[in-house]
Amino acid sequence: MTKFDEATQAIRVDENTYDVCLDPGYSIGGPLNGGYLMAAVLRAAVDASPFEHPVSTTVQFLRAPVPGPAQVRVEPLKAGRTAAFSRVTLVQDGVAQIEGLITTATLHGAEPIYADKATYEMPPIEQCVKLPDPKPQSGMTLNAQVEVLFDPPTIAWLKGEPTGRPESRAYFRMTEPQDPDPYVLALAVDALPPVVFSAGGRGWAPTVDLTWHLRALPAPGWLTVLGGGRLVADGWFDEEVEVRDSTGRLVAQSRQLARVGRG
Amino acid sequence: MTKFDEATQAIRVDENTYDVCLDPGYSIGGPLNGGYLMAAVLRAAVDASPFEHPVSTTVQFLRAPVPGPAQVRVEPLKAGRTAAFSRVTLVQDGVAQIEGLITTATLHGAEPIYADKATYEMPPIEQCVKLPDPKPQSGMTLNAQVEVLFDPPTIAWLKGEPTGRPESRAYFRMTEPQDPDPYVLALAVDALPPVVFSAGGRGWAPTVDLTWHLRALPAPGWLTVLGGGRLVADGWFDEEVEVRDSTGRLVAQSRQLARVGRG
Repeated sequence: MTKFDEATQAIRVDENTYDVCLDPGYSIGGPLNGGYLMAAVLRAAVDASPFEHPVSTTVQFLRAPVPGPAQVRVEPLKAGRTAAFSRVTLVQDGVAQIEGLITTATLHGAEPIYADKATYEMPPIEQCVKLPDPKPQSGMTLNAQVEVLFDPPTIAWLKGEPTGRPESRAYFRMTEPQDPDPYVLALAVDALPPVVFSAGGRGWAPTVDLTWHLRALPAPGWLTVLGGGRLVADGWFDEEVEVRDSTGRLVAQSRQLARVGRG
Repeated sequence: MTKFDEATQAIRVDENTYDVCLDPGYSIGGPLNGGYLMAAVLRAAVDASPFEHPVSTTVQFLRAPVPGPAQVRVEPLKAGRTAAFSRVTLVQDGVAQIEGLITTATLHGAEPIYADKATYEMPPIEQCVKLPDPKPQSGMTLNAQVEVLFDPPTIAWLKGEPTGRPESRAYFRMTEPQDPDPYVLALAVDALPPVVFSAGGRGWAPTVDLTWHLRALPAPGWLTVLGGGRLVADGWFDEEVEVRDSTGRLVAQSRQLARVGRG
């Protein structure tokens, strides 16, 4: 069991309740990372399902849970021949923190009938760069868990030179040896800095809701995470992420609606 | 009140329950159209919210409700300063048919900080074409409610000449005089034939879940509905729709996960 497996472990305590222990190692400077929280919730939902994979996940981030014990309540809604539906709630101190709808099914990895090309061709990994290490007092503990090598223009906002478009692209893997799986993908779709930073946005950009689809089980190796967005208006922006595995296969697609920071 | 307003009307019967009457005029040959069902559910969710607009909607299509009376149960989850979250369930004869998570907020129509161009430039409306009228015995009553003029290549599958890519694009408006609003958009994001028909798919292609975001209130006039998809594999496909209003503004974005038909 890897550290990430352990940090997202969900232990069944009764038919519809799982205990989780939210790990302080996945903090983004105060709040815990949304992708990490999704991964923990998904462990419970998949365990409670007759199918093997979380093919569709929508979560609303109602509140920001803190590290420590929490529960996942799973309410099965319907199980059919090819898919099952459930509602999940992450609860801490009796208060709902995250609400979700999850569709599970079993993917078999058949050859695609149709597969689009990647929306962007990444530069070779040797030309990609890390973010500077966060200051210890920032509380950005997530950075130690993941290796993220960015397409340089998409972090030029760090030097005060945003590209002017919402975008964030990187190679991604866990720091400890761990093959990507659906739970790592849940982390990957929400692990990069908000795309709005490249469009000139600043400050804490809270995700309001996020939907992602698991399209295939990832091959071992680096993931490629391609993030973009279509519209920044009225204080809201969309962030869309496409994740490819090391063979170039589309493995995850996500879209989140988030608030532009006031920083 | 237009016919569509009436067909989607939700009448509050107690704090958390609304009565709706599902209209046989929105059938797609047996089942009712998913976008129509979303619109009815959204009426209840918005009425119960302190905010004006459904900015994010995810629904799971558990079962296929039939025309006639049904209820929408709204469970408020949290209302903050800028957004409110709720869970909705469409119930018929005591059985949950559709489960949803809805985020409401109030859009103010500010000038965008960033806005992407449309992903595709539609041919002029005069060059676009209707589908042939459905046979009366098909039960496709939805066709009478909407005017849909297709980009011709995207319905060439009708002549046995699919383009080979998942795509479906059209101009869209209600047949009766009605300015587009968020409820019309809920219909529009799920009103075209499945994109997978252009990729060679056939037969009933049931939507499993659908998420859409309202990004701006649409101006009067025709909507442009641009549908595509990235991957058809393992019996699943994604359908992504972008809706622009008559001024070219992005007003809605959706993604659904659906099953490839066996027809």
